[in-house]
Amino acid sequence: MDGKPRAGIAIHGGAGTILRTAINSEQEHAYLTALRDIVIAGSALLADDGSALDAVTLAVSLLEDCPLFNAGKGSVFTSAATIEMDAAIMDGKTRRAGAVACVRQTRNPVRAARAVMEHSPHVLMVGPGAEEFLRQQGLPFEDSSYFHTEHRHAQLQRARQMAGIMLDHDAANLSTQTQEIAPLAPDQKLGTVGAVALDMQGNLAAATSTGGMTNKLPGRVGDTPMLGAGCYADNHTAALSATGTGEAFMRSLALHDIAAQIRYLGTSLQEAAQQVVMEQLPLFDGSGGIIAIDRLGNITMPFNTEGMYRAWMRPGEAAFAAIYADQSEDRKQR
Amino acid sequence: MDGKPRAGIAIHGGAGTILRTAINSEQEHAYLTALRDIVIAGSALLADDGSALDAVTLAVSLLEDCPLFNAGKGSVFTSAATIEMDAAIMDGKTRRAGAVACVRQTRNPVRAARAVMEHSPHVLMVGPGAEEFLRQQGLPFEDSSYFHTEHRHAQLQRARQMAGIMLDHDAANLSTQTQEIAPLAPDQKLGTVGAVALDMQGNLAAATSTGGMTNKLPGRVGDTPMLGAGCYADNHTAALSATGTGEAFMRSLALHDIAAQIRYLGTSLQEAAQQVVMEQLPLFDGSGGIIAIDRLGNITMPFNTEGMYRAWMRPGEAAFAAIYADQSEDRKQR
Repeated sequence: MDGKPRAGIAIHGGAGTILRTAINSEQEHAYLTALRDIVIAGSALLADDGSALDAVTLAVSLLEDCPLFNAGKGSVFTSAATIEMDAAIMDGKTRRAGAVACVRQTRNPVRAARAVMEHSPHVLMVGPGAEEFLRQQGLPFEDSSYFHTEHRHAQLQRARQMAGIMLDHDAANLSTQTQEIAPLAPDQKLGTVGAVALDMQGNLAAATSTGGMTNKLPGRVGDTPMLGAGCYADNHTAALSATGTGEAFMRSLALHDIAAQIRYLGTSLQEAAQQVVMEQLPLFDGSGGIIAIDRLGNITMPFNTEGMYRAWMRPGEAAFAAIYADQSEDRKQR
Repeated sequence: MDGKPRAGIAIHGGAGTILRTAINSEQEHAYLTALRDIVIAGSALLADDGSALDAVTLAVSLLEDCPLFNAGKGSVFTSAATIEMDAAIMDGKTRRAGAVACVRQTRNPVRAARAVMEHSPHVLMVGPGAEEFLRQQGLPFEDSSYFHTEHRHAQLQRARQMAGIMLDHDAANLSTQTQEIAPLAPDQKLGTVGAVALDMQGNLAAATSTGGMTNKLPGRVGDTPMLGAGCYADNHTAALSATGTGEAFMRSLALHDIAAQIRYLGTSLQEAAQQVVMEQLPLFDGSGGIIAIDRLGNITMPFNTEGMYRAWMRPGEAAFAAIYADQSEDRKQR
């Protein structure tokens, strides 16, 4: 896939132990359809000569609006039964960036991150101060009932029963007899959505958004809004978005490390991403995955978990969506 | 200074346009004495075979307790006349890290960051959620009068008059006739404290703490609590702490970039730090400086502003403290 830049977009909806035994074909179909529809919308925008920045903003807002994923509507609950969302966006052309953390009522945290980037002198804004700024910017807000989904609330109850922080949006395999819509194992720390894109002009962009971890302490912020950890884009190297154990991505600066290997060692995107996800992250007890596209349009989506909700597409070509590691169209791609 | 590791500690108290015309000899003496006393305390701890982690914790808490510097007591005011402090700490041996942002009443934000690292599963906690966790941990709190200093409040008034965000702890040169205790120019975005150390066991650590920017929007978080931007330590490369325009350090991942150049290009600490501070940061309109020590004990403290409050020391040797760029003992060091 080397040579001339080829526009494209990749998205993810979280990674982890997605047990085939815990997901029925109807659920699988719902996920794959949502992923495919969203990547098609992002790709159509690129086909119309839209910017990578607009494509990732659109794709991540659609993932946020879809209750299947842990971001925006469908976010998980903290231990205080509140919702706290984080998001980031980065423009590879200018390396401008914006991020929000611990926002509670902004309908689309990714658009909030973009407003911080475009309309404030800051990169990161958090909590009530961030929301005051966002209201002034005229961004849409929702009351907490909008974000409340029954399956997330049930997860919180189960997590509380299990005691301690039940990391993420995935109390699923605990009780496969319950009507569980997000079948990810409880020992996994995932539940993030993201998008990366290369547009026809050769510009890269990345965006990431999350509802955090089920039963987390209020105020905990993970890797999502941290540049170089959960989200990173630089036209000289690649656009990347992460999902997984946030603390491991933060301590290892996983995404910036991939970019540094490309820049300073001349490593290919695929090799650098593979090295970081498969070799470095486990040193930090990190599990999860990344999606990435480089300046030539090479796409890679490695993960060290059983599965990752993911999809990718290039304008004019077919969309690809998958959940498990052995779904071979992804292999071909990498 | 190559060869066997030599324990040492370096600290900073902010960088910027420190006009000689705006600082009298009494003020200069007060700063240099404070810097020297604090670096001597940190070095004594290292001489007693204390850890780098304990040395940077001690040095940064002393900088926080000193009202001369914009961190802890002496923090600047937000546009809402509140105080919001951020801090981070990182252990180079394990690359464990902790950080807090937007805390208002924790006496020593650096000790709060360390509590997050040592007593929570998280890396970053922000706002009221963070302070609830810190109270449970038994950390000392102060009411807002403790953090209130007259000169910072006067800066806020002047900043409001000037309209807009008057970045940082430094409305000084605006009116040299006023009794101004922090003589830094208003167009500079600085006002952070930090420490880096190498101990006798060969372990590195870094810590950074800030009161933010005068008249900033509440909820804005700068580079201080961002690993790889305001604070970073890794025994394989170096321990680093930044001060300056936070957004530029965040977008460029300045500190992690220095570590990546050392690791992947084999660049020396001094060369990598010089390249990032003098060449890369200006591309992001970034001004400021860093302090750094590598695994052999090489120390460098480059800055692209007129001055940086700084000091360094090795156990058994004399302490060095300086403000301006032309203070040559620093040059010899580098």
